[in-house]
Amino acid sequence: MDREALIAAIRTRQSFLCVGLDSDLEKLPSSFSKDAAGMLAFNKAIIAATKAYCVAYKPNTAFYEVLGKEGWAVLEETIAAIPDTHFIIADAKRGDIGNTSRQYAKAFFEGLQCDAVTVAPYMGEDSVAPFLQFPGKWAIVLALTSNAGSRDFQHLTDQKPFYQHVLAQSQQWGTPENLMYVVGATQAEALSTIRGIVPDHFLLVPGIGAQGGRLEDVARYGLNKDIGLLVNASRSILFASQDDDFQEAASHAAQEIQIKMRNLLEHHKLL
Amino acid sequence: MDREALIAAIRTRQSFLCVGLDSDLEKLPSSFSKDAAGMLAFNKAIIAATKAYCVAYKPNTAFYEVLGKEGWAVLEETIAAIPDTHFIIADAKRGDIGNTSRQYAKAFFEGLQCDAVTVAPYMGEDSVAPFLQFPGKWAIVLALTSNAGSRDFQHLTDQKPFYQHVLAQSQQWGTPENLMYVVGATQAEALSTIRGIVPDHFLLVPGIGAQGGRLEDVARYGLNKDIGLLVNASRSILFASQDDDFQEAASHAAQEIQIKMRNLLEHHKLL
Repeated sequence: MDREALIAAIRTRQSFLCVGLDSDLEKLPSSFSKDAAGMLAFNKAIIAATKAYCVAYKPNTAFYEVLGKEGWAVLEETIAAIPDTHFIIADAKRGDIGNTSRQYAKAFFEGLQCDAVTVAPYMGEDSVAPFLQFPGKWAIVLALTSNAGSRDFQHLTDQKPFYQHVLAQSQQWGTPENLMYVVGATQAEALSTIRGIVPDHFLLVPGIGAQGGRLEDVARYGLNKDIGLLVNASRSILFASQDDDFQEAASHAAQEIQIKMRNLLEHHKLL
Repeated sequence: MDREALIAAIRTRQSFLCVGLDSDLEKLPSSFSKDAAGMLAFNKAIIAATKAYCVAYKPNTAFYEVLGKEGWAVLEETIAAIPDTHFIIADAKRGDIGNTSRQYAKAFFEGLQCDAVTVAPYMGEDSVAPFLQFPGKWAIVLALTSNAGSRDFQHLTDQKPFYQHVLAQSQQWGTPENLMYVVGATQAEALSTIRGIVPDHFLLVPGIGAQGGRLEDVARYGLNKDIGLLVNASRSILFASQDDDFQEAASHAAQEIQIKMRNLLEHHKLL
C-alpha cells in the first residue's frame, strides 16, 4: 500500500489506529486453546472486532516464532485474514548485512505480503537499503523507542542525541514514500524536535495504553499536513477483557481510540 | 553449552571455527532442488562435511524465513542435525521491548534449543536482559559489525566511538558466562581496543573469507587466555564449489581454516 492509499484509508476510516497483534498465548481468554490453533482463532476474532476502527495491523513476530513452524503458519494465516483495505506491518526489528537483509525483505514483502517491516538501524545504510527497494513497501526504522532501555544509547549525546543522528542520516536512504520511523508515545516531548528533522515522514507510534503514552500529546506534536501518524495499541485492545466478552471489549477499546482520533483529526482540520 | 564446555570443545577440536549456515537457495549445487527439501539436504551434507573441523554452527534466520513456515521447519531440522558436541548460534539480530524479547529468547533457547542468539543493542538493557536469564545460554550483542554500514553510526564519536559505549555499558548487563560480542573481522585494527574494554568475553567474529578479513589479524588482537574467539565463515565454505564436489570442497575449506587455527593456537601457547 503506497502513501497516497494509506492517507486515503486513514481519512475514510477517520482513524490512524494500528492494532498490534502481540497475541501472547498465556493471556488468551480461557475459551481458546493455548496453542497455534487457539492463537489463530483469537487473532481472527480480534480482527473481526476491530477492523472498522483501525487502519493497520501489526503482528509482532516474536509471539509467533515462540511456537516454531506452527507459529510461522499462524503468522501467515493471520496476515491472510487481514482485509486488503488495511496496512500490514511486520514488527520484526530486523537488520543485517546487505545480502541477509535482502532475504528478510523478501520474506516479509513477497512471502508474507506485508506492507512494512520494522528495522533496527545499528548496522547502517546497507542493512536498511534492501527494504527500500520494493515498490509500495516500507521500512520503518527505529528512532526513539518507548521502552526504558531507550535511555541507554538513543540519548547519548555528540552535539545531538544519537537518535537524531539516526533520523538525520537515514532519511537520506529513502523517501517519505518508503520510509517511516518508530517513535514511542512515551517520548512525546521529543516529537516536536523529531518533526523538525523529519517533517514529512509517517511515524509509527507504539506506547499508548499499557505503556502509558498519551494520544493527545502524540497528536499535538506528531500530526503533519498528511496526518503522518500511525498510533499502535496492542495489549489494551487484545486483552481488554480475558473473559467471554473479550471481542466486545476489544471492539469497544478500539472504537474508543478511533473516536478520540476522529476528534483530534477534526480539531487539527485534517478531515 | 556453558563457557567451560565451549572452551573444552575448542581445545579438543583445535578449532574456533563457526560455520555460518547462510544457505542461499540460489547458490545450492545444481543437484539440489531449490526448495525447503533441497535446503535441508544441503545443510545436512555441509554439517557432515565440516563437523570435524568446526566447533559451532550459525544458521542465519533470514535464509530460512524467506521460505515461510517451511523454512522455519528447515531451521528446526537443521538444528536437530547438528551434533550435541557443537555450539549453536541463531544469527537472528533480534531485540525489542522486554516482554517481546522474552518471547524471542524462548523461541530460540527453548523452542529451537540454540545455545546463543545474536542481539541488536539499539533498544538498550531491557531489550537484551531477557536473553541473559537462561542458564547455559548466551546473548551475542552486536558491537562493531563487518559491513560498510558499520561506519554510519557505530563510529560516531562522543569522546569515544558509539560501539565502545555499547561495549562498556552492555557488559554490565551480563557476565563473560552469558554474554558475547559480534566484532567484524574487517575491523581487526579495532580488536586490541575492544580487548581492552572486554578482556574476558568471547567475541564472535564474522567477515573472514568472502568479506575479506584476515584470520591472523583476528587471532593476534582477539585471542585471550581462554581463547575467547569464535570466527565465522559462511559463503567461503558453503559454496566453495557449486558442483558435485561441493561436499569435498566445503570439507577442504573448513579443514584449511582449522589447520590455520591450530597453528595459531599453538603459536599463542593456547593448546
